[in-house]
Amino acid sequence: MLLSIPKFEMIERQNKFIKKLEERDCDAAIIFGVTDIFYLTGFHFHPTERPIGLIIDANKKVHLFVPELEHEHAEEYSVVDYVHSYPEYPGIKHPMQYFKEVLQKFGVGGKTVGYDSLGYGSSQGYRGPSVDKLIEVKNFVSIYGVIEEMRFIKSPNEIELIKESCRWGNLAHRLLQKYTKIGLSEIEITSRASMEATMAMIETLGPDYRPHGNTARAIFRGQVGPESAFPHAVTQNIVMAKGYTLVTGAGADVFGYHSELERTMFVEEVSKEQEKYFNYMYEAQDVAFSAIKPGASYSSVEEAVQKYFKEEGTTELTRHHTGHNIGLLGHEAPFFDLGDHSIIEPGMVVTVEPGIYVKGLGGFRHSDTVLVTDSGIEMLTYYPRDLDSLIC
Amino acid sequence: MLLSIPKFEMIERQNKFIKKLEERDCDAAIIFGVTDIFYLTGFHFHPTERPIGLIIDANKKVHLFVPELEHEHAEEYSVVDYVHSYPEYPGIKHPMQYFKEVLQKFGVGGKTVGYDSLGYGSSQGYRGPSVDKLIEVKNFVSIYGVIEEMRFIKSPNEIELIKESCRWGNLAHRLLQKYTKIGLSEIEITSRASMEATMAMIETLGPDYRPHGNTARAIFRGQVGPESAFPHAVTQNIVMAKGYTLVTGAGADVFGYHSELERTMFVEEVSKEQEKYFNYMYEAQDVAFSAIKPGASYSSVEEAVQKYFKEEGTTELTRHHTGHNIGLLGHEAPFFDLGDHSIIEPGMVVTVEPGIYVKGLGGFRHSDTVLVTDSGIEMLTYYPRDLDSLIC
Repeated sequence: MLLSIPKFEMIERQNKFIKKLEERDCDAAIIFGVTDIFYLTGFHFHPTERPIGLIIDANKKVHLFVPELEHEHAEEYSVVDYVHSYPEYPGIKHPMQYFKEVLQKFGVGGKTVGYDSLGYGSSQGYRGPSVDKLIEVKNFVSIYGVIEEMRFIKSPNEIELIKESCRWGNLAHRLLQKYTKIGLSEIEITSRASMEATMAMIETLGPDYRPHGNTARAIFRGQVGPESAFPHAVTQNIVMAKGYTLVTGAGADVFGYHSELERTMFVEEVSKEQEKYFNYMYEAQDVAFSAIKPGASYSSVEEAVQKYFKEEGTTELTRHHTGHNIGLLGHEAPFFDLGDHSIIEPGMVVTVEPGIYVKGLGGFRHSDTVLVTDSGIEMLTYYPRDLDSLIC
Repeated sequence: MLLSIPKFEMIERQNKFIKKLEERDCDAAIIFGVTDIFYLTGFHFHPTERPIGLIIDANKKVHLFVPELEHEHAEEYSVVDYVHSYPEYPGIKHPMQYFKEVLQKFGVGGKTVGYDSLGYGSSQGYRGPSVDKLIEVKNFVSIYGVIEEMRFIKSPNEIELIKESCRWGNLAHRLLQKYTKIGLSEIEITSRASMEATMAMIETLGPDYRPHGNTARAIFRGQVGPESAFPHAVTQNIVMAKGYTLVTGAGADVFGYHSELERTMFVEEVSKEQEKYFNYMYEAQDVAFSAIKPGASYSSVEEAVQKYFKEEGTTELTRHHTGHNIGLLGHEAPFFDLGDHSIIEPGMVVTVEPGIYVKGLGGFRHSDTVLVTDSGIEMLTYYPRDLDSLIC
C-alpha cells in the first residue's frame, strides 16, 4: 500500500527540475512556493510568519532553508542534500540574512539564478527584503510556474495516492448519505460522517499514514435546500427538510494529494422539476467525459458542455467552468474553460463538474475525479451517479 | 450576543483606510489581499483560481470585484458601494480586462493609486497581468501592510468576537481533556472533542452563527508523548500511553476571528522531571504576563522571558519566540521576538506561549490569548493553568 512518494521519485523530480533550469540557462534557483517545495522535497510545512526557501546551488545541490523549530523535522522527512536553519523570525538578524549567507557559501553569487518570487509570501505577518537586494548575481530569471507545470502530469505513484484519496472520500460520502435525515443540521451530519470515515481510514492505513491536512471528510458547504443554488457557498448549518436539493463534497488527504467527489442528492423525495435539472446536469457531465481525450484542448471540453446547455436552453443557469486539474492543491491549472487552450495529455488528473443553479430550487452538480489515459479517461471516483441512488 | 461586525463598523474601517490613503497622497487604491478585503467589507472568500479585488475609486467609493458565481453572495454579505463581476477565469476575456474597465469607468486612470500587490496571488493556478500594465496612472504607491497595521488594535466588537471564540475553544479543550484516555488515538480524541464542541456551539448560537473556517476544535498536532518535543509537528495519530506529555491546542472561528488556547497535559501520572520542566514553562509564562504593558516593546517581553530561561539554565531547550498578535489570522504581527521593536498598545490581542522542548520527554508550552489594557493585560482564555488541573 503506497502512502507516500518514494525517495527516488523525489530525486527524479529534482533532476527534472534541474534540467529545466539548464534549458533556461540558469545555474541556480531560489524557490519560495510551499507547494512546489513540498513537491520537490517531500517537506510539508504550514506557512506562518517564519519563512522557508529552497535553493538549488551552482553545483546543483538541493538546500532546504527552514526555521530552527522545523530543523529536525526537515532532516527527518525531506529529501535534500542540506538543511539550513535560522533561529527565529524576525530575530536580531533577519532570516533573509542567513539565507544570503547560504547563497554566498554555495556559489550562487555571480550566477544566473531562476526564481519563482522575490521573497517568501505568507500573509501571517512576514516582512523581508527582496532576494534581488540580498546578493549580486549575473542575472535573475523568472521561472514562475515551471514546477507547477511539472505537476500537471501525474506519475503512477501520484495516481495511486489520488486513488487512495478517492477510496476514503467514497466512504465519507457513503456515511454522509446514510446520516442525512430530516431535522438534522448540516454540521451534525458532516461532522459525524467525516469523523467516522477518518477513524476508519487511520485505523485501516495504520501509522504509515500521516495526514497533512484534512483526513477523510464529507461536506455540504451550505449547499442545502434552496441555498444549494449558490455554488461555493459557506457552511450555514441549515436543517434538512423533505424535498431539499443537496450538493455534497467529499475527499481525503493522502500525502498531500486530493480527490474530489461531489453529488447532487435529494432528501426523501424528488419533484419532476428537480429531476429535469438533475438530468441536464447528468448529461452535461456525460458530454464532458466523452470530450476529454489526449490531444484535445481544455477549452474544447468546455465548448462541448456549453453547446449541450445551449441546445437545452439552460445556459443562463450555469455559473462556472466544467473543471480543473487536481493534485497537491484542490484546484490546479489547466481549467476546462473557454479561455484555456492547454492540451489534454495522458497522466493528467482532472475534475469534471458542470453545474446548473436554479434560484429557489437548488444547485445541480456532480464532480468526479478522472485520469486521462492514452485513449480517453479512467474514472477514479466511483460513487453512484444515477438519481435513484442519490435519494437520502 | 455579537456574532458579526456591524455594518457601521465596516464603514468606519473604510473611512479610516481612505484617510490613510489621503495621508499618502493616494487618490485611489487597489487591494488583492483576501484577509484585508474581508476586514474592510465583511466579504468572506475562499481563494481559488478566480481572482478577487477591492477598488477605492477616485470619489472614494468602494468596489468589490468578484467572479460571477460569488456575485449574489457578495451583494448579500459585503458592505460596499458596488459589486462587479466577471464571467469566469481564465475566460475568453481575462478577468483583469474586466477589472481594467472598472478602473477606467470609475476614474482611477491618471491618478495616484495605492496598491498592496501588483496582482491577485492565489497559488491555485491563477495567472494574470500585473495591474501596472493594465492602466496608465500618475503614480503607483505601495501601501503594503497599511490595512494589516489597522488590524493590530482591536475594537470592542472585535474583542467580543475573540471572547466568544475563547468560550468555545474552552469547551473543546475541556472535552479533549475528558476524552484523553490510555489506548485511544490522537485523531479519535480530537475528532470527538471537536465534533461535540462544534455541535454545542452551533446549537447554542443558532442560525446567526456562520462559520468561516474551523468551528470549535481541539487538537494535539502530533504533540503526543516524546513527539511533543517537536513544536508545530503534524498530526501523527499516536496512541495515548501512561505518563505521556501532551501539548494541546483549541479554538473556534467566530466571524473569522480566532483565539488560541494551548495546554501542557500529562496522561495519568507526572514524573519529577516532567514537573520540573512544567514549572519552568509556567513561570516563564508568568514572566511574560508581567512584562506585557502598554508602552513596552514587543522585544522587551521576549527579553524578559529569555532572561528567565537563562537564569534557569534552560535556554538551549527553547525553540521559538514567546507569541504574536492574533485576530483574523492565527498568527499576526507584531511578535514577542528579540527583533521586533513594535510598541505594545491597549486593544492589541496577543498570544503568550513561551515553550521548552526536551528530547525524549516532551514539549512544555501553554498558550493564552490576552488583551492589552490601559494598565496591563486581561486574560481572555480562562482554562486552568496549574499542573494538578492538567492530568488526564
